[in-house]
Amino acid sequence: MIIDVHGHYTTAPKALETWRARQIAGIKSPAGMPKASDLRMSDDEIHESIETNQLRLMRERGIDLTIFSPRASFMAHHIGDFAVSSTWAAICNELCFRVSRLFPDHFIPAAMLPQSPGVDPATCIPELVKCVEQYGNVAINLNPDPSGGLWSSPPLYERHWYPVYEKMVEYDIPAMIHVSTSCNSCFHTTGDHYLNADTTAFMQCLTGDLFSDFPKLRFVIPHGGGAVPYHWGRFRGLADMLKKPLLRDHLLGNIFFDTCVYHQPGIDLLTRVIPVENILFASEMIGAVRGIDPETGQYFDDTKRYIEGARIEPTHRQMIYEGNARRVYPRLDAALKAKGR
Amino acid sequence: MIIDVHGHYTTAPKALETWRARQIAGIKSPAGMPKASDLRMSDDEIHESIETNQLRLMRERGIDLTIFSPRASFMAHHIGDFAVSSTWAAICNELCFRVSRLFPDHFIPAAMLPQSPGVDPATCIPELVKCVEQYGNVAINLNPDPSGGLWSSPPLYERHWYPVYEKMVEYDIPAMIHVSTSCNSCFHTTGDHYLNADTTAFMQCLTGDLFSDFPKLRFVIPHGGGAVPYHWGRFRGLADMLKKPLLRDHLLGNIFFDTCVYHQPGIDLLTRVIPVENILFASEMIGAVRGIDPETGQYFDDTKRYIEGARIEPTHRQMIYEGNARRVYPRLDAALKAKGR
Repeated sequence: MIIDVHGHYTTAPKALETWRARQIAGIKSPAGMPKASDLRMSDDEIHESIETNQLRLMRERGIDLTIFSPRASFMAHHIGDFAVSSTWAAICNELCFRVSRLFPDHFIPAAMLPQSPGVDPATCIPELVKCVEQYGNVAINLNPDPSGGLWSSPPLYERHWYPVYEKMVEYDIPAMIHVSTSCNSCFHTTGDHYLNADTTAFMQCLTGDLFSDFPKLRFVIPHGGGAVPYHWGRFRGLADMLKKPLLRDHLLGNIFFDTCVYHQPGIDLLTRVIPVENILFASEMIGAVRGIDPETGQYFDDTKRYIEGARIEPTHRQMIYEGNARRVYPRLDAALKAKGR
Repeated sequence: MIIDVHGHYTTAPKALETWRARQIAGIKSPAGMPKASDLRMSDDEIHESIETNQLRLMRERGIDLTIFSPRASFMAHHIGDFAVSSTWAAICNELCFRVSRLFPDHFIPAAMLPQSPGVDPATCIPELVKCVEQYGNVAINLNPDPSGGLWSSPPLYERHWYPVYEKMVEYDIPAMIHVSTSCNSCFHTTGDHYLNADTTAFMQCLTGDLFSDFPKLRFVIPHGGGAVPYHWGRFRGLADMLKKPLLRDHLLGNIFFDTCVYHQPGIDLLTRVIPVENILFASEMIGAVRGIDPETGQYFDDTKRYIEGARIEPTHRQMIYEGNARRVYPRLDAALKAKGR
């Protein structure tokens, strides 16, 4: 089986974006603030938005199952206050849940949280609980910068974040560390803001001792870990300078990288440098890069081709495709086993 | 000849740091503000600080010449106002000039600028002129984020920066795009802030059309280009999404990457992905990572070993070591030729 641990609902029916625009307008003009129940979307509409997009490509590429979360760039936690984020997160999570009900063999949900800049992350727990207990979510996306490019929250090793970590450990779910849209004109959302956040999340974990407090906490760092594998020597050297243990002891029991790296040389580096146990197959399809690479004639984001092209043993390939995901996402494994998969 | 395009004076005598501490204290207590002339440093002290550190390692490693600029993390443009930055930049640039006079065969200076957040970069021109015309500087370091991690300046493609670019083109000097210390607790200066800035600088250039306005402008993006070569497919795909030309046409006439990547797999990726014309040898020694890699028994920052270990043709190696630097830094080439080198 091939499991893609990183998919977002980027193709939701237009009504979602329209509702969100009304919500954003409603921040300044409360009389126009829409209710959640104003958003109507039929199962047929949802079905078509998936069938003709993600599922079509999954079938073409031979991907069996996607861990599916709300569109990352639309989380936009910096817009409005906690109430705005809370309503929006509930809507987006419900949609991913509906996708998972419509396509139970192909999609399993991961939750966005109703984060809001300056607000205690503990406020996210009720949504998290609902998503795990009622919607069968197997993971969360945690935004280390809900300000959207101002980086005003404390680093991930600070106690500020501990309420979320405690619940993650209780449920035995990992978090993908994933920022959202940048509202800082210096940063392009999917070009550098995402990659920078990945690198920063890793370095925050390197600097702190978070995993001493939470030995079972697990973070998935998307987009191939940002700059980290390319600069693995630098980070090993910095761990030495900072008197930390070797990275494999300090971090690799808890941190995993996905394969959203859109060319063969990048995947070759990732699989050469990072232990196979720490690599999870993913494509973030349909996402930031939707075109066809003129050098290969294939989609940039068809990352399975790069994994197939990497010089790794078949057993290792299977770990990247399936085994590691089952280990890092135990609720996914349990859900699959319950179906005899 | 082997030219290292990226060295900082990280080993200056203690008096420099002491003077800077007094200057910073003087921002709040102006009565205690030191004069530039209060800083006394003998040629012998400077000589020893170089001879026993950078020059010793250059000799051990077989590096002939270093383009030498003030310590990047000490630029700290976010501290104080323009007057503070101006005095500090003048001091630091004078020291690098003195190093180049004491070791004319081994060091040639590049200038830091007296940037200050919110201040027009045109204010940096007099220092730049002095450094080029009187001190023989062959390049500048340009900080795209003088706020130190708040990213409050406009992107590099904005007209805000044009006065500096106009002077660079007039003098035919490149800029290394290099941030300084992060005052944002989210970012570790040499761990992620540097790499993120590299990635961001590249993406800003990709987003804008700066090199249409300045076809001869040249940027060196340090630390192997941050995350860029590892994600070269992503950036090629984003250029496509943004309707930009192919990266080699859009950016590679103007952007160059150094080799400050501290392990063999990283250099192998860099030399595999980026055209050889765009790679400049560098080590940033003595810098962020000073230890010995337990996996190789060699210094992490001994990047010459990785270039030697890369599967590239000898002629390409010589371009990385020397030829490209002479092309990208014409004033360096002229200074060398004037000495018959």
